[in-house]
Formats: sequence, C-alpha cells, structure tokens
Amino acid sequence: MKLATIENAAGELSVVLVNSESERFWPVSELISGFSGDMNQLVLQWDQLKSDLVPSGEGQSLEGVTLKAPLLPRRNLFCVGKNYHEHAAEFSKSGFDHSAKDGEIAPEFPVVFTKTPDTVIATGDKIPRHADVTDQLDYEAEFAVIIGKGGLGISKADAYAHVFGYTIVNDMTARDLQKNHRQWFLGKSLDGFAPMGPWISTPDEVNVADASIQCWVNGELRQNSNIGQLIFDIPHLIETISAGIELKPGDVIVTGTPVGVGIGFTPPRFLQSGDVVRIEIVGIGALENEVAE
Amino acid sequence: MKLATIENAAGELSVVLVNSESERFWPVSELISGFSGDMNQLVLQWDQLKSDLVPSGEGQSLEGVTLKAPLLPRRNLFCVGKNYHEHAAEFSKSGFDHSAKDGEIAPEFPVVFTKTPDTVIATGDKIPRHADVTDQLDYEAEFAVIIGKGGLGISKADAYAHVFGYTIVNDMTARDLQKNHRQWFLGKSLDGFAPMGPWISTPDEVNVADASIQCWVNGELRQNSNIGQLIFDIPHLIETISAGIELKPGDVIVTGTPVGVGIGFTPPRFLQSGDVVRIEIVGIGALENEVAE
Repeated sequence: MKLATIENAAGELSVVLVNSESERFWPVSELISGFSGDMNQLVLQWDQLKSDLVPSGEGQSLEGVTLKAPLLPRRNLFCVGKNYHEHAAEFSKSGFDHSAKDGEIAPEFPVVFTKTPDTVIATGDKIPRHADVTDQLDYEAEFAVIIGKGGLGISKADAYAHVFGYTIVNDMTARDLQKNHRQWFLGKSLDGFAPMGPWISTPDEVNVADASIQCWVNGELRQNSNIGQLIFDIPHLIETISAGIELKPGDVIVTGTPVGVGIGFTPPRFLQSGDVVRIEIVGIGALENEVAE
Repeated sequence: MKLATIENAAGELSVVLVNSESERFWPVSELISGFSGDMNQLVLQWDQLKSDLVPSGEGQSLEGVTLKAPLLPRRNLFCVGKNYHEHAAEFSKSGFDHSAKDGEIAPEFPVVFTKTPDTVIATGDKIPRHADVTDQLDYEAEFAVIIGKGGLGISKADAYAHVFGYTIVNDMTARDLQKNHRQWFLGKSLDGFAPMGPWISTPDEVNVADASIQCWVNGELRQNSNIGQLIFDIPHLIETISAGIELKPGDVIVTGTPVGVGIGFTPPRFLQSGDVVRIEIVGIGALENEVAE
C-alpha cells in the first residue's frame, strides 16, 4: 500500500491511498467514514484502520493534485551518517569529515545526527540554494523509515513491528558548514534541506534486504547501490536510538547514503541552481527536486 | 519580569508572572482578560500583551504549586559546544572530543548541535539515570536564550531585538555515547537530558555582559564563571544559526558550558544516582535536579 498527502486545487490537504501504476488515488476519508486526520493521525490509528483501507471504485487521477511531503514530522529527523562502506570511504578521503578517528573509515557505532523538522519539503518543491551561506551544496539519496508504534528500549528482534512504512529522503548538505562547524547539524538543517516523498510505502511493498537505490543529477547516474548494503541495518538503528530516546509514532529515521555524492568526485561536483536531483528506490517510487535560483 | 509555567494541585497548567523575592505569583490569565494560552502563545503575543503584565494585588504563594519547564519547545533545542575558552581546553584534553582538528582548542566557528524537544524537564524533576546505556553521565551548566520574534538572516546588530528572555539549561550528556557515536546528538538527547528553568527572565533582568553562572554537585562548587565570557556571544550565535535556518518564536538557543564539568577532572567525576545538580545564574535564579535511581 502507498499512502500520500496531497493538496487539491482548492488548497485542501488530504491523506490518500495511491496506486502508483494507474496513477490514481482514493482519499482515506472516503474509505473510512469519520477519518479526517493527517498522516500523523493515520499512523496513530493504523492498527484499527488499516484493514478498511481497500480502494473502492476507480479513484481519482493524480494529475491535477500536488503531492506534499507524506508526513510533517513532529520533531527532528533521526539521521545516520557513513552507513554504507564505500560512501564512508569516499567521505573519509574527501577531507570534509572531522568526526572520525585517524585512519577510521567505517564507524564502530552508528553516527547519529539530526535535521530540524522544518527542513522537510515535498517532491517537486524547489530546494533553496542558500547562496548566502554555502558554496558547497550536495545531495545524499537515502532510504527512510517511518516509525508506527513508539517505544523505549526496542530490541532488534522486535524492531520491524515498530515500522509503519518507508519513504525517500534527500539528505541535502552544505559541505562547508558541515566541515566548519564540526558538528553536522547546521550543514544538514538549512531550510528545505530534506526533500521527502513521494509517498510512504507500507513494509510489504519494500524488500529491505534487496532494493536498489539510485540517484541522478540532471539525468546522470551518480549513486547506484542497494539498501541491503547498510552497515547498520534497520533493527540495529531502531535498537540504538530507542535505547535512551523513546521513539514516537511518526518519527523518521533516515538511514544514510551510498557512494557517489558530490564530494566523492575529484574535484567535488557541487549542486548549482537549476540542477535536478532524482532519487528512486524500488518499491517506493521517485523523489525529484530542482535547486532554486 | 520573570515568567513561569506552573501546575496547581488540580493538575492545571498556567503561565504566571513571578516575584522571586517574595515567592509570589500572578496568573497571566488574571492580568490579561481573555488570555488562556501557554508560554509559546505568550511569546507570540508578547508585543501586544507585555505592557498589561503588571502585578495586581498580593498574588499567590509559590508554595503548593509545582514549577514546570517554563516553555515546551516546538522543535529541537539549538545548542553550542565549546563556547568558553577554559572548557574548550578541558574538553580537548579529556579525550572525549572527536570533533576537533589536531591541536585545535577554541573552535573557529560555533559548534552547533541539537537536543530533541522531548529532553526538556523542569526544575525539581528527576534526571533519568539511563544506566542501561551510559556509565558516564555528566552535567553542563548553561545560559539559554528564548527567541521572541523569529527571522531568517538576522544580523548581529538586530539580534537582541529577537530575544524574548533567558533561562537556565543543564545540558546533560552521556560522555560515552557522545564519544562513541562521533556526532553528539545521541549522547545529548536521552530522554530528560535538558532540565530547564526555573522560569524565563526578560532581558532587562539579566546583564549578559557580566552575570555569574555557577554549578554545584551535592553542594560542591564545580563551575564558576560568567556568561560575559562566551567565545561566541548571543548576537553572533543568532546571526550564525538564522543565516540559513529561519528562527521561530519560542526557539531555544543553549549557549555552552564553562570549565568544570565531570570530564574536566582526573579521573573524571561522573554523576551517580542521588547526586543533586544545582545551577544558578544571576538575574535568573536556580535550577536544581537530582539524578534518579
């Protein structure tokens, strides 16, 4: 099942069930009488409501509506750095990483950082250029986990029972700020730095052991990996974060990017105004954003 | 003026004006007819309401009510690391800092990291021990700024016009997590890791150029400095953060800790269950919390 948040021509937002092949949708409020909430509300009521979410009739066309970010996180995104071996190596070689011990490439423990909730924008939205504060705008294609059932001290064995679904995040980064300020928060949290979408796929739609993740810039394939290659997998990340932070329904964990980001090239290939970043993950769909003027 | 959030015996929360000397308070809702909001709402309406906030009558006694965190932040706390010279040196020497270049002590740019909003607890609340995930619990006395008027690209010259007031935060840290995970977020964001309070002082109450900040553990003075000693001062921090992140009313900037934290001692002196951390800043008051069993 794929679940999106859309805006119609009148500016009204609604949560909808999507058939990505036929490009048609069904408002959840029409399938479940009395439901009028947003995606966060649907996550909270998921166990009671999911069996009633059966498309009825022909649905409506996605043409003419606008996809919004599938979910507006209630708090910061939990993000993971250096979580694919080849990317950890390219980042280490780039000279932009001040977080590692000498000679260390792959981290011993998950490197967890965060982005503000206000970084989230939708597929199709323009990524702010932030030319006043950065000359080194970079993309990072990432697989993201939406938490369904919250919890503190979730074990690896129980972790998947806490997953609501999956989406795509472009973990946009200002490399100069990431480097200069030592901690990554500022370089990762400029307004608009987390394009998210196009929608949320429920767990049955995604093979987490083997699903390709690819990223193109202006049609040129830059990242081409598989989410099965994560150094710290989803259960490991959920166990690590929830050990001391109670995870809550609707929390988002962004799992890290594979090799092929702009600073992996010599010289680095930073994004410019007008560049288009497109990310696809099998089982989810495509997230595409242009860098604003 | 000092503004607090209190809970009465019936469990009702309200925003109140406090006289810290007489230990009496006046509910804002009684001074301003029609006001029934929380501190975030008061921040939003401050310009219209502040002139009406004049204590009337004897007020009520603070005995018998419970101080809550003065404000529940709507998003993550913006925190600053290594922002006093002597603390930057002790942290550098401690072996716990993986963020610095070789030989670097004071940072060239503000080191900005973050804590989740759910870390916030009140004075008097117990700090969770988190024994399952850390053996290295540490305190950090810090001066915090509450943003009143939001903005993007706020200049140093305009910065103070965006300040609503000041409070105290204990930037609790699990040193092992801070070190192991490279980025500080996890070690700084365990549930309950941001005791905040006891209330907010408006800017006229605090001399930011010269106000002592002190911290005691079980009555022993550990930190004894002055907020005038910040490496990057309040205007600098507001300009840096707001350059690419639009600051919003009610945002909290926690400005860093002076020398004297637990890892500054040889051997380090970590907090244990039952330890009491008390922080005082002149012009604000005292924040005191015990570490839970």
